[in-house]
Amino acid sequence: MQTESKTAILLMHCPDKQGILAVVTDFINKNGGNIVYLDQYVDRTEKIFFMRAEWELNDFIIPDEKIEEYFATLYAQKYNMDFKLYFSNQLPRMAIFVSKMSHCLYDMLARYTSNEWKVEIPLIISNHPDMQETAKRFNIEYHYFPITKENKQEQEAKELELLKKYNINFIVLARYMQVLSADFITHYEQKIINIHHSFLPAFVGAKPYHAAFERGVKLIGATSHYVTSDLDAGPIIEQDIVRISHKDTIENLIAKGRDLEKIVLSRAVGKHIERKILTYKNKTVVFN
Amino acid sequence: MQTESKTAILLMHCPDKQGILAVVTDFINKNGGNIVYLDQYVDRTEKIFFMRAEWELNDFIIPDEKIEEYFATLYAQKYNMDFKLYFSNQLPRMAIFVSKMSHCLYDMLARYTSNEWKVEIPLIISNHPDMQETAKRFNIEYHYFPITKENKQEQEAKELELLKKYNINFIVLARYMQVLSADFITHYEQKIINIHHSFLPAFVGAKPYHAAFERGVKLIGATSHYVTSDLDAGPIIEQDIVRISHKDTIENLIAKGRDLEKIVLSRAVGKHIERKILTYKNKTVVFN
Amino acid sequence: MQTESKTAILLMHCPDKQGILAVVTDFINKNGGNIVYLDQYVDRTEKIFFMRAEWELNDFIIPDEKIEEYFATLYAQKYNMDFKLYFSNQLPRMAIFVSKMSHCLYDMLARYTSNEWKVEIPLIISNHPDMQETAKRFNIEYHYFPITKENKQEQEAKELELLKKYNINFIVLARYMQVLSADFITHYEQKIINIHHSFLPAFVGAKPYHAAFERGVKLIGATSHYVTSDLDAGPIIEQDIVRISHKDTIENLIAKGRDLEKIVLSRAVGKHIERKILTYKNKTVVFN
Amino acid sequence: MQTESKTAILLMHCPDKQGILAVVTDFINKNGGNIVYLDQYVDRTEKIFFMRAEWELNDFIIPDEKIEEYFATLYAQKYNMDFKLYFSNQLPRMAIFVSKMSHCLYDMLARYTSNEWKVEIPLIISNHPDMQETAKRFNIEYHYFPITKENKQEQEAKELELLKKYNINFIVLARYMQVLSADFITHYEQKIINIHHSFLPAFVGAKPYHAAFERGVKLIGATSHYVTSDLDAGPIIEQDIVRISHKDTIENLIAKGRDLEKIVLSRAVGKHIERKILTYKNKTVVFN
Repeated sequence: MQTESKTAILLMHCPDKQGILAVVTDFINKNGGNIVYLDQYVDRTEKIFFMRAEWELNDFIIPDEKIEEYFATLYAQKYNMDFKLYFSNQLPRMAIFVSKMSHCLYDMLARYTSNEWKVEIPLIISNHPDMQETAKRFNIEYHYFPITKENKQEQEAKELELLKKYNINFIVLARYMQVLSADFITHYEQKIINIHHSFLPAFVGAKPYHAAFERGVKLIGATSHYVTSDLDAGPIIEQDIVRISHKDTIENLIAKGRDLEKIVLSRAVGKHIERKILTYKNKTVVFN
Repeated sequence: MQTESKTAILLMHCPDKQGILAVVTDFINKNGGNIVYLDQYVDRTEKIFFMRAEWELNDFIIPDEKIEEYFATLYAQKYNMDFKLYFSNQLPRMAIFVSKMSHCLYDMLARYTSNEWKVEIPLIISNHPDMQETAKRFNIEYHYFPITKENKQEQEAKELELLKKYNINFIVLARYMQVLSADFITHYEQKIINIHHSFLPAFVGAKPYHAAFERGVKLIGATSHYVTSDLDAGPIIEQDIVRISHKDTIENLIAKGRDLEKIVLSRAVGKHIERKILTYKNKTVVFN
Repeated sequence: MQTESKTAILLMHCPDKQGILAVVTDFINKNGGNIVYLDQYVDRTEKIFFMRAEWELNDFIIPDEKIEEYFATLYAQKYNMDFKLYFSNQLPRMAIFVSKMSHCLYDMLARYTSNEWKVEIPLIISNHPDMQETAKRFNIEYHYFPITKENKQEQEAKELELLKKYNINFIVLARYMQVLSADFITHYEQKIINIHHSFLPAFVGAKPYHAAFERGVKLIGATSHYVTSDLDAGPIIEQDIVRISHKDTIENLIAKGRDLEKIVLSRAVGKHIERKILTYKNKTVVFN
Repeated sequence: MQTESKTAILLMHCPDKQGILAVVTDFINKNGGNIVYLDQYVDRTEKIFFMRAEWELNDFIIPDEKIEEYFATLYAQKYNMDFKLYFSNQLPRMAIFVSKMSHCLYDMLARYTSNEWKVEIPLIISNHPDMQETAKRFNIEYHYFPITKENKQEQEAKELELLKKYNINFIVLARYMQVLSADFITHYEQKIINIHHSFLPAFVGAKPYHAAFERGVKLIGATSHYVTSDLDAGPIIEQDIVRISHKDTIENLIAKGRDLEKIVLSRAVGKHIERKILTYKNKTVVFN
């Protein structure tokens, strides 16, 4: 964000060993890369080393298309690293899945349109026609796939085809009220971000505001997480809460919750776009 | 708190009807009471009216010992009210149950000793000897009742006897690590306040910080609630949370949690002491 | 919100006297109004009584157009009340003033378009052409009034004319980067809502994020308030904060601040639309 | 905290250069130190590198008493480092200055007594006799130095003598209502932690809750900071806020503020004890 030069971004984790950070920064430095971001974290219980490095490519002597190979050959194998390499000029391509509610959708499209996010959003997919008009306002293609028990497999196949056609890298479920099949999810592992309208793991599943109201909680929450085949049980990216009181009706909870949901979801999506999230053992490491 | 005069405090709820607030305020006004606090709330779904009124007794023409009778006869029966009457000069008497952890205990004793709370704390009960020394620092009696499966019934009977002897009105479980029997609870219904170290209903039961760590949540919480025979399921009085990150170990969660627990518990106890909490249908109405 | 019937909303304050609440509720009840909302607050230091009442008009025996007169004659004069009466079917008409930043604008237009707010927004006014396109997306008229020292008086006169023509009831400054003249403000006293991008009264005036960064604060805030002729000194409606750290650059503060600003502004505007705000002595009473 | 072995802690900052982190970690690793904590931060605007490293000394080949010399000679001069070295078994020695309010004092003494903090507190100093009794409860020496304009210089000299005698490393002002002289402060630069009962820089100086009430803010705050000769203007360590409403009297603000103050102060003191704070240009870098 601070730099206009083209940068490379390395996200990686590996078994912790002395000097790994030095090895990686040395690789960047000695080949002419100017580091503009570096953060690392060691899980001392699991003995795992995580890092994110970003460096300017102006004077980097390894050609872009060779960096991945060189890094894999010289370091990744040796240190048993799991890594991903991105380039700042290759914007991630995101699809939004939506149903009937517009608040998360608007929040993301506003960020997109005002260039707050370095992302491409070529595609909105829905199981309802309601948001067609909104998509049109922002000149984004809208594809309507009504889902029934009978046609679910078939429709998901068409959706996957479309996602492939548009080179979609990751999917955001913006209050998409339809459970994705386990098979669908395997095509986008750790690449589907959902917003659940409760403070997970409290109130898993349907109607969490109603459940929160019934239980008489004094705070309500929202949780964004990567989708896994276990409902509402994937790695949590971001959570937040808002205070309520006995005066709040279910309608108030839903209204207050909308603001929570959109902010919590957009924070998570923003971090994903910036390639600042690593997942490990059903948890996330989210760098600042 | 704002007034030094002796006051009466009325806490009540009843089926909502037009004019009930007027009836009650009229009763106070026309008999010479000067209202210093009035708050009301109507649950429009359940059609229940809740109120708290506090008035100065200087010029009130009904003698203190007759107010309850008069109010019951003239209004409570007629409007099917459930009410309680307190006097500001009759300090509630509180017992603290504690195990081995001191943070909630210290927080409450500091408030008590510095007269932040208008309460009497004549008694600390524990299933461990560890906090004896702390009790002594504050000159409060400490009774040690070790609990085993075999002696639980017998020990609880002794505790109840002691609580009765000391005219204890309500009990605070300050991280008391021992489940009270259903029978014990019946003696202090809606009068036992517990602190649970999670954002209920997430992580009910033992070791919630370990469970939160495993789940990879981004916020941890604490919940104070009245104790019912359902574990961690009684009416919630107060909740709060603190942000954590992937960097936090279980030890960090426990440390951050301690600060949450003591503040959340003390807020709830403070409201109870001020007689600002009404319970209804396993929920609380907490007035400001 | 809970009722579909047409309602009347009374907002009022007056010197506190015994029985005022009873007088007003009695007026509503005995004339056939069904109260669906009632909240009151007494400032015991200033001895001022504030209330908001809302009642259904189906069976109310006083004709709508006579309620104000009757209430004024029968009660307001007698009790020295300052009151306003609204009808739920008369939607308030709001104009948005904007400059170059879109985040607050989008947030409000999304709420408007999705019927979250019961309001009419016929008009957007700007001192820059940048948001023209956004206005068009939502089919709202956009009027561009470039302001210089020389033409300010003249341009404001035109703006006022336009506002009058469109029967605008209140104005929202959505990061409008141009100080309104004292004269302009007199036409919309307590009817212009601004968002200031700091935790007022810290960092009054220009570039508050830069000032916050310089000072090394650990939280940044946003404040929505009614505009008075004193810069950033009008009655505060809502404030909130977000945590920052030494890692955050000014760019990060600005980005995190955007989310704060739009939520804090929209909360304030929402309360204003619901007619839940009373102002008194440069402060607000905001009902739940 | 995770380790029982004796550790060394290095806190340092220097002009940012490529490879500094590698140099320092290499120094630790190659001499047999096992790193248990490592965090670094680069201020890319100021081009300053900050780090905190902690390593076990069991197999470290440089004797404890030589580490500082070796590090200074081999690296600190070369890289223009400003560094401090601590050992985990040398507990910092803290003095508390207090006036008449007990809440911060109790909070800290409870943490100290329960071994939450790895610190020694041999001494409490006060300008009032009120907290004598509290000090006695915790068996800590209490020295009473009444301060007048006339005797201030003389009394501060005696205090400094006492602090020296007890080898005090840092001072905590626990709502100490007496401004320290600039001369006094020079003896403990960046070593005096104060709690100010507002969200600085709002409401500098006396009676911030009264000022907050007057201004009608919707949140109140507390700020812990290092003391400099500029009143309430030193580097901020930690801040937090709590929500208030029009219903809160000044007394309520003061009561709610007490809980904020003690938690915010204790968080700052805890970080200082853990040697996790670096100061630079009137700001703090606070490691997790």
